[in-house]
Amino acid sequence: MSKAIPEPVTQLIEAFSRLPGVGPKTASRLTYYLLRAPDQLSLGLADALRDLKEKTTLCSQCFNITVDNPCGICSDANRDQRTIAVVEEPLDVIAIERTASYTGVYHVLHGALSPVNGIGPDDLRLRELFARVESGNVLEVIIATNPGQEGDATAMLIRQELTPKGIKLTRLARGLPVGGDIEYADSVTLMRALQGRSEL
Amino acid sequence: MSKAIPEPVTQLIEAFSRLPGVGPKTASRLTYYLLRAPDQLSLGLADALRDLKEKTTLCSQCFNITVDNPCGICSDANRDQRTIAVVEEPLDVIAIERTASYTGVYHVLHGALSPVNGIGPDDLRLRELFARVESGNVLEVIIATNPGQEGDATAMLIRQELTPKGIKLTRLARGLPVGGDIEYADSVTLMRALQGRSEL
Repeated sequence: MSKAIPEPVTQLIEAFSRLPGVGPKTASRLTYYLLRAPDQLSLGLADALRDLKEKTTLCSQCFNITVDNPCGICSDANRDQRTIAVVEEPLDVIAIERTASYTGVYHVLHGALSPVNGIGPDDLRLRELFARVESGNVLEVIIATNPGQEGDATAMLIRQELTPKGIKLTRLARGLPVGGDIEYADSVTLMRALQGRSEL
Repeated sequence: MSKAIPEPVTQLIEAFSRLPGVGPKTASRLTYYLLRAPDQLSLGLADALRDLKEKTTLCSQCFNITVDNPCGICSDANRDQRTIAVVEEPLDVIAIERTASYTGVYHVLHGALSPVNGIGPDDLRLRELFARVESGNVLEVIIATNPGQEGDATAMLIRQELTPKGIKLTRLARGLPVGGDIEYADSVTLMRALQGRSEL
């Protein structure tokens, strides 16, 4: 066996296997694909992996991933710096930006409360959020954590802390997804949609 | 959008997307996972990718992937150098080595004939195989190409070329996979199993 698989091949298979959702079969398929592919494919991926760690940092204000600090959104004079959307992950920022309907700034927590996984308030950028609210002229905090147990727990904690500060606190609406089908909606979503019904 | 996603992030997503079976969703999931993971994970993968291209070569005799040339199998005095198993891919060598029941050497074609994909005889290591047979004291060539249209066509071509040389030519048996169920066997496999039936 050891004679049949050269060390660099085994090592790349192992490195791929450490990625989430990549099993040993996929890892070896990718490795053998790269062996036959032009060098530029492997080397380009290698460079991109290095750059990801060496050229990015977290924005010191909103903790989104960025090259410049503060990030493009935090330093944009056209954006409303008094409205902060609190999200769990950088990907959530991208999703909200894609709507092209939000002009405030963000605060990335880098996770959500999850006692099961040992993630407490100190593992998130909560202290930094509270300091931002404390120090600046923040008018509204939109809690845009995921609609689920962990996102809800995180939202509750933020509400507890920020309610006494007298700022406007909102949360993203929950209901039927656009294009969804009532017949196939889960009952919790349907219940929320009923509770949040609006007049026509 | 462009402000929300820093350049190094976009570039890694693109680099991952170029891998087979990795779509944009998976690519961005992997990228954002790596952003949060310890640096060693990204940098280890980057190093492994570089080493794959910089430290491996093809064995000048059997064309398997190797660090040393000739490879460990070709330079192993305990292996029967007069029996050559012809396979399509390096992964096939590993599969056969895993059986621990083959003591000959290999010849890796790096593909199979496929007119649809524009792969002809000159794209495979066929010339090198014929030269090996021509030059050396080869007793048997075991054609271990995949059981399918492309593997069959490749086997036919090898047979055509090597039959006049008067060496023993064999092909891997086809039939029911061990642990398989006759009820669920496809009819071509079952037909082959019938044709190749052996006496008890």
